[in-house]
Amino acid sequence: MSNLIGNRFRVLVFGQSHAPSIGAVIEGLPAGFAPDWDAVSAFMARRAPGGSALSTARREADAPEILSGLNERGETCGAPLAMRIVNGDARSRDYEKLRDVPRPGHADYPAGVKFAGHNDIRGGGQFSGRLTAPLCFAGALAMQLLAREGVRVRAHIAQIENVFDAPMDFAKPNLDAIAAEGLPVVDSAAGARMENAILQAKAEGDSVGGVIECFTAGLPAGLGEPMFDGVENRLARALWGIPAVRGVEFGAGFAAAGMRGSAHNDAYRVEDGRVVTQTNRHGGILGGITTGMPIIVRAAIKPTPSIAKTQESVSLSRNENETLTVDGRHDPCIVPRAVPCVEAVVAMALYDLLLERS
Amino acid sequence: MSNLIGNRFRVLVFGQSHAPSIGAVIEGLPAGFAPDWDAVSAFMARRAPGGSALSTARREADAPEILSGLNERGETCGAPLAMRIVNGDARSRDYEKLRDVPRPGHADYPAGVKFAGHNDIRGGGQFSGRLTAPLCFAGALAMQLLAREGVRVRAHIAQIENVFDAPMDFAKPNLDAIAAEGLPVVDSAAGARMENAILQAKAEGDSVGGVIECFTAGLPAGLGEPMFDGVENRLARALWGIPAVRGVEFGAGFAAAGMRGSAHNDAYRVEDGRVVTQTNRHGGILGGITTGMPIIVRAAIKPTPSIAKTQESVSLSRNENETLTVDGRHDPCIVPRAVPCVEAVVAMALYDLLLERS
Amino acid sequence: MSNLIGNRFRVLVFGQSHAPSIGAVIEGLPAGFAPDWDAVSAFMARRAPGGSALSTARREADAPEILSGLNERGETCGAPLAMRIVNGDARSRDYEKLRDVPRPGHADYPAGVKFAGHNDIRGGGQFSGRLTAPLCFAGALAMQLLAREGVRVRAHIAQIENVFDAPMDFAKPNLDAIAAEGLPVVDSAAGARMENAILQAKAEGDSVGGVIECFTAGLPAGLGEPMFDGVENRLARALWGIPAVRGVEFGAGFAAAGMRGSAHNDAYRVEDGRVVTQTNRHGGILGGITTGMPIIVRAAIKPTPSIAKTQESVSLSRNENETLTVDGRHDPCIVPRAVPCVEAVVAMALYDLLLERS
Amino acid sequence: MSNLIGNRFRVLVFGQSHAPSIGAVIEGLPAGFAPDWDAVSAFMARRAPGGSALSTARREADAPEILSGLNERGETCGAPLAMRIVNGDARSRDYEKLRDVPRPGHADYPAGVKFAGHNDIRGGGQFSGRLTAPLCFAGALAMQLLAREGVRVRAHIAQIENVFDAPMDFAKPNLDAIAAEGLPVVDSAAGARMENAILQAKAEGDSVGGVIECFTAGLPAGLGEPMFDGVENRLARALWGIPAVRGVEFGAGFAAAGMRGSAHNDAYRVEDGRVVTQTNRHGGILGGITTGMPIIVRAAIKPTPSIAKTQESVSLSRNENETLTVDGRHDPCIVPRAVPCVEAVVAMALYDLLLERS
Repeated sequence: MSNLIGNRFRVLVFGQSHAPSIGAVIEGLPAGFAPDWDAVSAFMARRAPGGSALSTARREADAPEILSGLNERGETCGAPLAMRIVNGDARSRDYEKLRDVPRPGHADYPAGVKFAGHNDIRGGGQFSGRLTAPLCFAGALAMQLLAREGVRVRAHIAQIENVFDAPMDFAKPNLDAIAAEGLPVVDSAAGARMENAILQAKAEGDSVGGVIECFTAGLPAGLGEPMFDGVENRLARALWGIPAVRGVEFGAGFAAAGMRGSAHNDAYRVEDGRVVTQTNRHGGILGGITTGMPIIVRAAIKPTPSIAKTQESVSLSRNENETLTVDGRHDPCIVPRAVPCVEAVVAMALYDLLLERS
Repeated sequence: MSNLIGNRFRVLVFGQSHAPSIGAVIEGLPAGFAPDWDAVSAFMARRAPGGSALSTARREADAPEILSGLNERGETCGAPLAMRIVNGDARSRDYEKLRDVPRPGHADYPAGVKFAGHNDIRGGGQFSGRLTAPLCFAGALAMQLLAREGVRVRAHIAQIENVFDAPMDFAKPNLDAIAAEGLPVVDSAAGARMENAILQAKAEGDSVGGVIECFTAGLPAGLGEPMFDGVENRLARALWGIPAVRGVEFGAGFAAAGMRGSAHNDAYRVEDGRVVTQTNRHGGILGGITTGMPIIVRAAIKPTPSIAKTQESVSLSRNENETLTVDGRHDPCIVPRAVPCVEAVVAMALYDLLLERS
Repeated sequence: MSNLIGNRFRVLVFGQSHAPSIGAVIEGLPAGFAPDWDAVSAFMARRAPGGSALSTARREADAPEILSGLNERGETCGAPLAMRIVNGDARSRDYEKLRDVPRPGHADYPAGVKFAGHNDIRGGGQFSGRLTAPLCFAGALAMQLLAREGVRVRAHIAQIENVFDAPMDFAKPNLDAIAAEGLPVVDSAAGARMENAILQAKAEGDSVGGVIECFTAGLPAGLGEPMFDGVENRLARALWGIPAVRGVEFGAGFAAAGMRGSAHNDAYRVEDGRVVTQTNRHGGILGGITTGMPIIVRAAIKPTPSIAKTQESVSLSRNENETLTVDGRHDPCIVPRAVPCVEAVVAMALYDLLLERS
Repeated sequence: MSNLIGNRFRVLVFGQSHAPSIGAVIEGLPAGFAPDWDAVSAFMARRAPGGSALSTARREADAPEILSGLNERGETCGAPLAMRIVNGDARSRDYEKLRDVPRPGHADYPAGVKFAGHNDIRGGGQFSGRLTAPLCFAGALAMQLLAREGVRVRAHIAQIENVFDAPMDFAKPNLDAIAAEGLPVVDSAAGARMENAILQAKAEGDSVGGVIECFTAGLPAGLGEPMFDGVENRLARALWGIPAVRGVEFGAGFAAAGMRGSAHNDAYRVEDGRVVTQTNRHGGILGGITTGMPIIVRAAIKPTPSIAKTQESVSLSRNENETLTVDGRHDPCIVPRAVPCVEAVVAMALYDLLLERS
């Protein structure tokens, strides 16, 4: 099922931007779990738009409505937990035009080919970033279940356009150093420059991309299955479920390509009676299996394709060149809102791995 | 099944470096297909070691033996095609030592934790790069089936350590410009510098990493499924089945993070009656679906962790620090041999996508 | 996903009897399909209770509400079709007692063990027959899509307690001979005796079981995959998704065990230029693959476990024997309402097979 | 993968009757398991032909050769366990004739349609009962792993043609009462009559079918997943992987259709401090979940379709009626050899369920 992810903790996402609802169905929650709904709401609020000048003006209550999966005491009961979010505040526009003149950088054209013109073009349909709201719901539950096992997941914005956050210590990252308010960065001055970069792009009718770097803490060694079900395989498959991701790397990542083995290998040592590596260029994963060191994964986020500037496109009906000006409400940069999405899918994948531990 | 990949064209890989055999079982081959076995051998020979000073001295005939799946005329018959490669030329060594003192950068330690010390430590066991031989077998078949549909897959070495091949045109890559002999590069002078970098590292008892960039030609628009089964999700999951991959990116990849939307979006235009993009920073995929432009995917390969230099490790039995000197035959750089592996898994994933087309 | 079935046409069911909603998410519908919603409602009405003295007094509107999956023209758009049915008319009762004293023949006890007492005990929770309503929704869509391919699915009640319907011709079943009104039988006199058997059991505070026999028409030869994905494997897995099924057989079924090969084999012959079998004891399937003859599958339905008579059970809290009298509204026989459920899951499985045809 | 079964204990079967090999690849074995290979051979010998006048004269050594999955100490190492059996003693015959004139009751015709005439017709190809040898290998391993958990699986022949074994006590079956030598029956006199029925059919160039009834002991309550992954769904899917199965039923099975609820429900009681049912018409499963009572499952096996008598068929090339006389070596009754196959797939499915227990 292409909208489904996970082996033991399984999440199916449904919906389109302007359908009556979006939602998720979750299998594999342990029975007897009473979620902290306030924490779920707080987590989802980090993704929700409308909070600042940095994001779209569209306001979504995004209040999840539970359809099934709880018993009369409000605990998970072993049945799938289904939820939906009612889509409101959707503006009707001239969608027929978008069917004819696809937006550069969007799924309009390939989806139109794939679905022979029957795809839901309204607000991006099933390709909308709005579909990450149910992912955040599921991720918020996974985080609570991971917390029971002493596992944390936290991401910061490592880069916006050409502004970089301060580097974090790979071997001993301080997750609490990431700002809980405003942009999630370690270096508040860098955060201020990132905001400026976003506002500058917005002012020019343009958009910017960035990089999100995610860390774990407390994950045991020995998780992950060989070859195609290793930790990287799963995290990568999950991360590419977030629209706009263009690259994924672990530990030293692409920088490893330029290194010597002697500079890249992480030496082992015994520390407080535990086996650790002195450095963490391997990003917590060797052979697809966790080493007990923090997982470090980065995702490159492309600049939002919806920009105010006039762009070159084609008219599919006339099979000739055409220009396009996209109006509507759009984020000049989705990186800040994508941070909880990255945390969510990483948490989902890790909780799934924990459940698979034999 | 963690050693299995594919929805319609399914490949299961088995074996360990020093087990009696390694092999693969393939489901989803069309019945009546008579493979060109010479082409399969030629493709597999590109991955096989022993060919030059650039790779390990271990020699493997790597001759695939068909166990099942063909009818009396040598055509696929609808039953799974099973094959094996008999492991020969395996040297016995002191494996107990490796169980105790794990090699930095290898799966020894996390696999030992995962399998409670029962993992096959000989030659890296199931984590050995040798497991990519059956992948190349399956990929060679996928390539022949793709060729029937007019689809090609070809990769070059984009980088070795700090040497870069000439850039290729993303919108109109010339796959035939990649050298068929020697290192697969576009710029032979760069290739010579790459060889020098490898030999230099080897001379110093060290190793180097690199980047492989893969292109497709002839792939139609409209392939790929939404959210978690998009083209990137699948290619990434497949690519991380190759040991030593540390990053995967599509099109502009991580560079997109530093760009404005207006610079990153690829404008559409009509060319020879067909809708194309003028540039190809999107790497042939939007919303997880092919646009009909060439797919461009890059994989970062870490430097081989097995180096001759003495390294710091630990003794697990004594729970104290220990030094380790790894002998044996090792590649100073696996990037050249990984090129056909990348082509193979990309071909497998794309043929799978073609079969899924509804 | 245990609530999910199908390879290409995939249906996920969620909900509990007294949860806010029950529903389904469907992947694999062809884009551009505009369902006949009246036909869907008519099909679902055949399963709905409240229609006669033969079934429970609980009334359910069972009106499906579409959550996602349609474009602005009401056609399927390639995104998952999600639907829900709001649960109404649920009576609150003393569920704590049922947690303690499990009903014989129900899932109360094993589910309580499995979910450590957190299972939703209200109205049978996720084990309720009510979950077949979304299955009928999905099946109704599958039937419309099968009809496009000239395929029909129709079942009759072959047996209620000790009353048998007239046998149908396996080689050339007349699906139109099955009554569209009242009990779905071929022999109306047998139907009347079945009604009597049900009413007699009801009057005695008891229940009765039966057998449902399902036929296809128009299905081509060559569908089904070898070994574990043959037509029987899939139909059986699907049919056991309907609560109360205790046996499944194809063609001659268990009667084949008492036959000689010469009496059981179906001879081939050419008829109107087509290869057919003269008889159809094989039930349209050989080696897991369709032969082009009608599929014949029978499902045994156990008598409803909820009966008014006092029964022997145990108190789990006191770990001692206890008697139990179940009140509430219950069907004295669920066989008539299970007929569309059997048709639904058979249709779902067959449409899935058609989509898999390479 | 259609030749693959299992969620956590996964078995993939490959091969054709006259291919170089048949075999299996198994994932999910716990690391560090040292199989008792003599017990595996003894179990497989129960399925092997050549032992008596009751079965085919084809002799197969059926010695399994391990290809991978063990470490240097002969223990499972976490990698897939791959094995093969070399096919020997295969007689070449005029297969082209069988491609043209399909055998009644065999997969020849539908497989020919499905694979457009490319199917392996030799010895039944992938549809041969010979493919159950790797299943028995996997089942033998599952049985050893189940034994560690105190779980046993044992089947007897309940019926051959019109001869029935003595009934066993469903609530407290004595598995040791089943004969270990000769036909696996409880009543040796019935066994003698079954042998006569088989020999009588053989003498007449005919064949007979039968019923196999399988019991478990020691299985805990609470195994199985809701709806489509319940114990019946899985056991049924697995059992239909054995060629010639035409029906599957649990507990009272089809007989439940003729019963009242008051006669069918199994009352609970406390016995020796444990909750049990007094009778076991439910066959150890309610709502798809084990109750802790013995599982009782029966499979109907059709009479071998290969009979010496001349039969009516068609010539596909001439599209006209034709007669067919099948020579070769065939079992007059495969039921005795199918008994270990039933035990094997039941053991595989149950061990899988045990591993899934959360």
